[in-house]
Amino acid sequence: MNEQHKFVLDESRIPTSWYNVAADLPVPLPPVLHPGTGQAIGPDDLAPLFPPALIAQEVSSEREIEIPKPVRDIYKLWRPTPLYRARRLERVLDTPARIYYKYEGVSPAGSHKPNTAVPQAFYNRDAGIRRIATETGAGQWGSALALAGSFFGVDVTVFMVRVSFEQKPYRKAFMQAYGARCIASPSEETETGRRIRAELPDTAGSLGIAISEAVEMAASRDDTKYALGSVLNHVLLHQTVIGKEALEQMAVAEDYPDIVIGCTGGGSNFAGIAFPFIGDMMRLGRKVHVIACEPAACPSLTRGRYAYDFGDTGHLTPLVKMHTLGSAFVPPGFHAGGLRYHGMAPLVSHLVELGVVNPRAYHQTACFEAGVTFARCEGILPAPEANHAVRGAIDEAIRCREEGVSRAILFNLCGHGHFDMTAYDEYLAGKLEDRDYDPALLESSLQQLPVVPA
Amino acid sequence: MNEQHKFVLDESRIPTSWYNVAADLPVPLPPVLHPGTGQAIGPDDLAPLFPPALIAQEVSSEREIEIPKPVRDIYKLWRPTPLYRARRLERVLDTPARIYYKYEGVSPAGSHKPNTAVPQAFYNRDAGIRRIATETGAGQWGSALALAGSFFGVDVTVFMVRVSFEQKPYRKAFMQAYGARCIASPSEETETGRRIRAELPDTAGSLGIAISEAVEMAASRDDTKYALGSVLNHVLLHQTVIGKEALEQMAVAEDYPDIVIGCTGGGSNFAGIAFPFIGDMMRLGRKVHVIACEPAACPSLTRGRYAYDFGDTGHLTPLVKMHTLGSAFVPPGFHAGGLRYHGMAPLVSHLVELGVVNPRAYHQTACFEAGVTFARCEGILPAPEANHAVRGAIDEAIRCREEGVSRAILFNLCGHGHFDMTAYDEYLAGKLEDRDYDPALLESSLQQLPVVPA
Repeated sequence: MNEQHKFVLDESRIPTSWYNVAADLPVPLPPVLHPGTGQAIGPDDLAPLFPPALIAQEVSSEREIEIPKPVRDIYKLWRPTPLYRARRLERVLDTPARIYYKYEGVSPAGSHKPNTAVPQAFYNRDAGIRRIATETGAGQWGSALALAGSFFGVDVTVFMVRVSFEQKPYRKAFMQAYGARCIASPSEETETGRRIRAELPDTAGSLGIAISEAVEMAASRDDTKYALGSVLNHVLLHQTVIGKEALEQMAVAEDYPDIVIGCTGGGSNFAGIAFPFIGDMMRLGRKVHVIACEPAACPSLTRGRYAYDFGDTGHLTPLVKMHTLGSAFVPPGFHAGGLRYHGMAPLVSHLVELGVVNPRAYHQTACFEAGVTFARCEGILPAPEANHAVRGAIDEAIRCREEGVSRAILFNLCGHGHFDMTAYDEYLAGKLEDRDYDPALLESSLQQLPVVPA
Repeated sequence: MNEQHKFVLDESRIPTSWYNVAADLPVPLPPVLHPGTGQAIGPDDLAPLFPPALIAQEVSSEREIEIPKPVRDIYKLWRPTPLYRARRLERVLDTPARIYYKYEGVSPAGSHKPNTAVPQAFYNRDAGIRRIATETGAGQWGSALALAGSFFGVDVTVFMVRVSFEQKPYRKAFMQAYGARCIASPSEETETGRRIRAELPDTAGSLGIAISEAVEMAASRDDTKYALGSVLNHVLLHQTVIGKEALEQMAVAEDYPDIVIGCTGGGSNFAGIAFPFIGDMMRLGRKVHVIACEPAACPSLTRGRYAYDFGDTGHLTPLVKMHTLGSAFVPPGFHAGGLRYHGMAPLVSHLVELGVVNPRAYHQTACFEAGVTFARCEGILPAPEANHAVRGAIDEAIRCREEGVSRAILFNLCGHGHFDMTAYDEYLAGKLEDRDYDPALLESSLQQLPVVPA
């Protein structure tokens, strides 16, 4: 086995294609439905929202989809990202496990989000689109799309959940530094926003509302398209550069993961690390135990229903089959803002149903505890979202110690926590509490799931 | 010439030694003096503050000083750092210049500071020291030492300038995450602190005061030593890993810099990138134009006096010959907190006197403008300090365009700006103003320079 701590690859080793797991599914993904007719929607239905190339990727069953050269040129600014062997963490945990992590925090936005923001901006510009509207919760995705827009000369408008807009002025400034326009949501700029503000003048906003606003803006303007930072097939596709690089780096390390772990909000960073290994499993019969770590306060995979649902609060999106808490579900306050979504990527949901992906839910203090342990060993302070994956990896490493078995564990460290120090401040001051979702709210939200027209 | 954008090196290429420019100086550095006697101080005088290995490095004239293996093992967490060719910036500036930058923001603390924090923590632990006291202004240095302390099991106490302590709770939380204790300065924990609080109950604190407190704590406790994040010879020495790696990466790029640029506060990141190239110049006769970019609001190199002065406000340090604005000088408010020091590293000052280093002062809005231009081309949002180097590099690239000459420009991008978004927020809102220092204050501060005993 290779004794290195860090596995870096030259820019010539950036993957030339993304991996499309749809090509290897034993059972195809359920279709996306039109909420009015209950019929499967086609590419034309998506045309108001996305450029043709992204729609083609959304429905493609090609295994490998070429990464355009201008996208690879931008990827060179931070990719390939390093893969580490966490030797110091292994020693502290006194575990026979070999712990590896892929670190996406080296991107200019500090997370994995630019992996898809860049191709989305590229394909929009390529289709002559002048503006992209999107939503952001904690700000990671908005920052990434702002960055990507600046590279390709595409204007970016970001609807930012109002409470984050007010509490995280730094995130707003970050987006503005790249030239994006950032608007508190609900806003006065859309019908959805105006209606909600009239009904609930003091609302803190939500991701579901912000999505409705961005979708409405894109659908109502010819020069504007919409972009989503997770959930959709093409978004997950773009993130597979993570796992494809990791496959190559594990080969340099002369090792192969027994366990692959990612945190799941919408599912994209998880898919990024896991899908290429799942592909190996499907095609080559390799055995990998794949674990999706989600927040116990917003547990779509472990407590949600696998059903058709809307992606947004305003019910402007098509119906997708996914694990969902219902679009009326509102999670209690917790710090991993990127994991506060009511649904889960259809591809991830499908793989859970097929028994390929194993979900697990964690409370936040256990995650922050894991993050601080990790930071004191490996140096990097993880984003609160990433702490869920760290927790999962540490638990598996402890299990290896208890069972006296050496397994190779690979997890995705999807971003650094430099923008999230308020959360750490609370944790370190002993003020952080575990919050559970409201079971009555979940019940009522699930009862409101849409009825699919026959 | 190599057509790559990014030049990465494997961890096996981390330098095995630091480069000591003192070995190649045509005129030796003026001695450090005891403020009471005016006599040159010896290693024994420094023993209360530093462990023997660091004192030996402080006065060494060996050209290459070996990097201990445990330090190199920690360096592997982020080193070698990447060197980039800024091809997108070149295109936007329409310049024939070849612009390269070394990026130190990939360290876990987001800056170059861990390069010296790690060996300082190592040598202290190696000498049986249980605790290190230090000061921090904006928080970069305190964060780095907190990180380094956590690796070697050394307790770290950080005196943080009170105004930063209150305005930057995230920085405090960052240090605490690594287990450090962070105290607002002036504090009640030292005589200096108590005296200043009695005289000036509402003082915002200053770096000079915080240094006095940390030095006092170290000098008065057997189990505690002191650590400084810049200025001293051994600190600059440790930073030369930056330039040594850059030399190797420029060779991979099949190029060599005509111009090397760094920003200067205390001088350490500048020395880190520049000294190995200055060594080439001294020994091999290579021609390199070396530029030190400092803030116009705290212009020690361009407006200070080259004289013996104290390093701190409380006058607890020895006297060192350096470019200084006087220890009574207080700069006006500006955002590059890491560049707010009244003095300059003796080695950098000496090289300016020898005509080897060319200083230049910039106002902050011009620097933020450069930083935003850079971010929109290269993706990375620089720290406000680093923006001074970006400004210098862009100006040189524009000069290349005007003169129709292609020169290779290398600058050090010493950190990212993710912790400094307040500053960008002000800049982007058009609220940032250029501030000049108070000439009367400078005059009076220079008049208070210590008289060296005969």
